[in-house]
Amino acid sequence: MVIVMTPNATNENVQAVVARVTEAGGAASVSRGDARTIIGLVGDLDHFHGLNLLALPGVERAVRISTPFKLVSREHHSQMSTVMVGATRVPIGPDTFTLIAGPCAVETAEQTLAAAHMALAAGATLLRGGAFKPRSSPYAFQGLGESGLKILADVRTETGLPIVTEVIDAADVDLVASYADMLQVGTRNAQNFSLLQAVGEAGKPVMLKRGMSSTIEEWLMAAEYIAHRGNLEVVLCERGIRTFERSTRNTLDISAVPVAHDLSHLPVVVDPSHSGGRRDLVLPLSKAAIAVGADGIIVDIHPNPSTALCDGPQALVEEDLVELAAAIAAFTPLLNRGPALPTEVLAVTN
Amino acid sequence: MVIVMTPNATNENVQAVVARVTEAGGAASVSRGDARTIIGLVGDLDHFHGLNLLALPGVERAVRISTPFKLVSREHHSQMSTVMVGATRVPIGPDTFTLIAGPCAVETAEQTLAAAHMALAAGATLLRGGAFKPRSSPYAFQGLGESGLKILADVRTETGLPIVTEVIDAADVDLVASYADMLQVGTRNAQNFSLLQAVGEAGKPVMLKRGMSSTIEEWLMAAEYIAHRGNLEVVLCERGIRTFERSTRNTLDISAVPVAHDLSHLPVVVDPSHSGGRRDLVLPLSKAAIAVGADGIIVDIHPNPSTALCDGPQALVEEDLVELAAAIAAFTPLLNRGPALPTEVLAVTN
Amino acid sequence: MVIVMTPNATNENVQAVVARVTEAGGAASVSRGDARTIIGLVGDLDHFHGLNLLALPGVERAVRISTPFKLVSREHHSQMSTVMVGATRVPIGPDTFTLIAGPCAVETAEQTLAAAHMALAAGATLLRGGAFKPRSSPYAFQGLGESGLKILADVRTETGLPIVTEVIDAADVDLVASYADMLQVGTRNAQNFSLLQAVGEAGKPVMLKRGMSSTIEEWLMAAEYIAHRGNLEVVLCERGIRTFERSTRNTLDISAVPVAHDLSHLPVVVDPSHSGGRRDLVLPLSKAAIAVGADGIIVDIHPNPSTALCDGPQALVEEDLVELAAAIAAFTPLLNRGPALPTEVLAVTN
Amino acid sequence: MVIVMTPNATNENVQAVVARVTEAGGAASVSRGDARTIIGLVGDLDHFHGLNLLALPGVERAVRISTPFKLVSREHHSQMSTVMVGATRVPIGPDTFTLIAGPCAVETAEQTLAAAHMALAAGATLLRGGAFKPRSSPYAFQGLGESGLKILADVRTETGLPIVTEVIDAADVDLVASYADMLQVGTRNAQNFSLLQAVGEAGKPVMLKRGMSSTIEEWLMAAEYIAHRGNLEVVLCERGIRTFERSTRNTLDISAVPVAHDLSHLPVVVDPSHSGGRRDLVLPLSKAAIAVGADGIIVDIHPNPSTALCDGPQALVEEDLVELAAAIAAFTPLLNRGPALPTEVLAVTN
Repeated sequence: MVIVMTPNATNENVQAVVARVTEAGGAASVSRGDARTIIGLVGDLDHFHGLNLLALPGVERAVRISTPFKLVSREHHSQMSTVMVGATRVPIGPDTFTLIAGPCAVETAEQTLAAAHMALAAGATLLRGGAFKPRSSPYAFQGLGESGLKILADVRTETGLPIVTEVIDAADVDLVASYADMLQVGTRNAQNFSLLQAVGEAGKPVMLKRGMSSTIEEWLMAAEYIAHRGNLEVVLCERGIRTFERSTRNTLDISAVPVAHDLSHLPVVVDPSHSGGRRDLVLPLSKAAIAVGADGIIVDIHPNPSTALCDGPQALVEEDLVELAAAIAAFTPLLNRGPALPTEVLAVTN
Repeated sequence: MVIVMTPNATNENVQAVVARVTEAGGAASVSRGDARTIIGLVGDLDHFHGLNLLALPGVERAVRISTPFKLVSREHHSQMSTVMVGATRVPIGPDTFTLIAGPCAVETAEQTLAAAHMALAAGATLLRGGAFKPRSSPYAFQGLGESGLKILADVRTETGLPIVTEVIDAADVDLVASYADMLQVGTRNAQNFSLLQAVGEAGKPVMLKRGMSSTIEEWLMAAEYIAHRGNLEVVLCERGIRTFERSTRNTLDISAVPVAHDLSHLPVVVDPSHSGGRRDLVLPLSKAAIAVGADGIIVDIHPNPSTALCDGPQALVEEDLVELAAAIAAFTPLLNRGPALPTEVLAVTN
Repeated sequence: MVIVMTPNATNENVQAVVARVTEAGGAASVSRGDARTIIGLVGDLDHFHGLNLLALPGVERAVRISTPFKLVSREHHSQMSTVMVGATRVPIGPDTFTLIAGPCAVETAEQTLAAAHMALAAGATLLRGGAFKPRSSPYAFQGLGESGLKILADVRTETGLPIVTEVIDAADVDLVASYADMLQVGTRNAQNFSLLQAVGEAGKPVMLKRGMSSTIEEWLMAAEYIAHRGNLEVVLCERGIRTFERSTRNTLDISAVPVAHDLSHLPVVVDPSHSGGRRDLVLPLSKAAIAVGADGIIVDIHPNPSTALCDGPQALVEEDLVELAAAIAAFTPLLNRGPALPTEVLAVTN
Repeated sequence: MVIVMTPNATNENVQAVVARVTEAGGAASVSRGDARTIIGLVGDLDHFHGLNLLALPGVERAVRISTPFKLVSREHHSQMSTVMVGATRVPIGPDTFTLIAGPCAVETAEQTLAAAHMALAAGATLLRGGAFKPRSSPYAFQGLGESGLKILADVRTETGLPIVTEVIDAADVDLVASYADMLQVGTRNAQNFSLLQAVGEAGKPVMLKRGMSSTIEEWLMAAEYIAHRGNLEVVLCERGIRTFERSTRNTLDISAVPVAHDLSHLPVVVDPSHSGGRRDLVLPLSKAAIAVGADGIIVDIHPNPSTALCDGPQALVEEDLVELAAAIAAFTPLLNRGPALPTEVLAVTN
């Protein structure tokens, strides 16, 4: 951390900062410039925050130099991580490209099973589907709750696809974790710290969507919350941020994939369905996600979008999935990625 | 709702939309333009969302015409509401200007009591203070929890000031409500729908901060969630939104006060401390809030900011509060607002 | 400037930075931290930019410590400036509150004169009006050009009001300056550096609108461009920034007034008409502007908004102006500001 | 256009709108809903804007239904356009992928020639380079001006590469057009309408960068300005927008490529250098641009970035270009695009 003093800070002001840092066991190095004096601090960042140096006289601002996350940082863990999902251990990581597909919301057993078969046919190795839906209107369909989870579990039994599903309340984490293979934390809960802590203790991998107004650093700090409770099985999901542009529901921050990969060892996937909010954009954005180096994508599909209870306009149909599968097959080898087949299946095959 | 058809939509496409709306009990009125056809829908908006008209062939987009909130809307409730807080019934509403002050975080009994006396001296009639703190780093001070609530309750006993405090998890709502006079929902939980529903059932007034990336409409929809569970004692709090500007922590959207007042009957207060994140901006932003028509402000104060465990740099000290009290006394009469004294006290006086 | 090295930077990397800075006549002070080394630079910032230190091996980033503007900075010029406009020297500065009013676009001599009389009646001491209009559609009314300037000059002769009018092309600066008392640079030209340089040489005061996506620092750098050509008669105008919120045309950044006053000695006025884009918001936003410490406001008025060729929906009519004049009369004395009467008039009176 | 009336609009209010539209030769169709009445307008949009319907009593707002651009719209011109650049007619369009490369700023003849040879070796068929540089500081290097243009022309003679260079002032358009093969309008001039009109009359193809805060619609309206003056040889360039995220200089809006292709027949290229502002992001963002369907990319290169006078940290060096050329060779065939060789060369070859 660097402390920048005001132009008229006195020598006493500077010494007071140095003294407080030194008393706390840190070290301080003073550089006197023409315009102002700066003080470089050596030691533990979180500790310095507690010192409240900004409230001392003559202090203008503090500039953070090192990153505030540790467990998820690549600085201390240079090898990229692979997260394994489900009993069959489907990988999400640097060597593979994982297609996660399924309906936005679980509506009926038939719809979910039909969607799962569509997903399988397209090469998906994980099934997504929401039983608890965070909806911006209290009058909108809020999901089937536990009966939706049971449908997902039944479909897993029938198809073998591990399931990824959202949890929206810390109190539901145990329930959801008893059915799901991977817990999803949604964009609206990106700074719901109680929920982050609860999924950090749930013993299941977590898909952490970026908050629609979270910086990449805040997103990684949310992952740090989960890791801090002992769970490093976290997959980051870029799903678009809120900007002034309105022709898409959100603005997909495609750069966030290489930036997050540079800062963190965690896998990063992209949600091309919710970022654009338009079915016609899912295919081009999926290709962009592959090309930029994402470890997978998560897409909305529906056997009959015109009757979908949630986000119908962005769901892919069968013919779209054929195109998507072809694109994945064509592009991923250029990135040296193979299909994300279940590790157990691979083990048997080999 | 207006359905806009694509330029090449056929007559059959138009008829299919009309048919689906009519079957659902709505009415549809078709206007054929040079460039494209639009269909005006008459009936219940939420119902139309379920119809999934966007997924029909030839439909380009749907344009919402009426507001999606009802219970908090001024359209059906033209008189502005006053929310009464605490046993002594401190008003927040159109006739008064309510100063809410206190420490960002409850740290010790002494600090909280000292802050409460500062608040009282400045004319505050509600005490704020956080026992559960949502912090972006898992390594930062997270609040004292229930022992912080006990400190607040003790300080209320001593000073008579009703207390406003944040709740960050639906599971804690009953606990917090057993101590607090008003529940605060923070900006990071602006779309934590479980929490909104829980405070909707808690039987205590709610201070609902705007999400840092919530539109005014989404903010009012969050209030609708609370109202939908039976609680109309909601005060909206504008606290700055996230923009590209970085000289302030957030950008105070001062226009949100008259816009929200125009759309909703709920009171609106402003948080000049968290929006700017700078102590030197609290006074000018407070004056702006009064002038634009806010029903109150909520400010961070601290008896000794240089030792604060949270947001010290923005906390007001005693001398600032003298200035703030003078500004409130000078400006509020121009808006025809009086001090927000406890109603019971007024009753005794009169 | 502080240079932050990467975690794995070598001692040679650090020495190379120090050497390049020293060779260029600067001084460098190295602080070795646990996580990384930082180097504080002493000397001329602009010079360091030319050194291209970021391209040296082991350099992660450069953190600017001091502000990049000089002539407009308050650091070197602590007293607030007053800009005098027109032959009668109407002040814009710390002791007064200046009401600038007029039609968005000059349409006819009658409309302009009627608007000028409305402005005068409300206490305005400067007349605004556009002859060159930057319009986002090539099919929209683009202004009357020089004949509009002539109308403005005639109205000035008749009413005595100095005129503020926009110039949108460097090639027109001499022409516009030959009629106008103050040149306005609009939000879309906030980084049109040719235009900024041209108005810097025109010998007339400049009203510099903030770019809708300019940071406060970029806005001050635009002012520095004008000052750099010898013209320090610059008034900053906050007119709303572009954010995700859509209930207002732009988001008025009310905090920008005290922030700009803190950083610069230049006067700051607010445009409540274009920021909100709604007639009903002009009065509350004007009050907020006064309260926060603005040196004036610039508002759209029209004798008959329903026939306006430009931005009719936000123009104030006669009854609004009565209210606005009353608000200015009531609020400005609380800020120790008097009316911005022409200095020559005052001189005669005294 | 749809006119939405206020909830309490009277029948007379509705009739007044209909009357004004009808008098102007349009047609209006009234739909009376439960909550409010809407009026669909049939006829010329620009005409309706002149009617100023928003200023009539009882009118709440107008909702635009059709797009405001015409000449650049795909609605009236469904086939995608190819823009040919230079005497050798280098194509930018649907069948090819065009690599445009060169130094951010022309510094010396040697540097420019070295960069051109780097560009050629990587397969670039157009050379970029700035002689007039819009810089946010008046103290920064502003470009060599006409002597820079001469260097570019000499390098064209030597290498055969047509040149793309920026023009920042309408007054310079003739000069720049006398040297350049393609005129670039930069992000800061995206709404400099005088400049847009001037390049619209210059008889040379135009590379139109998106404004950093322009919506896609505003960007297309800027193109419409150019087209309106008779020049349809416009290539759109997405270069990142301004958002709250700060780990990249701008946020590349990758979705803008398919969205613009859907709305307009003009070619769209991507600038991966200025959007990220980081050399390490240029390669992944270039791949994303290819994959999403861009018609080309424009990248900064420099023979020796550590001495660059402008944007050195983002310039690619020789080894990066080898990787970039390999990526283009591998990815573009998957999109059915070939290299953008000069048409004349192809003609000779065939």
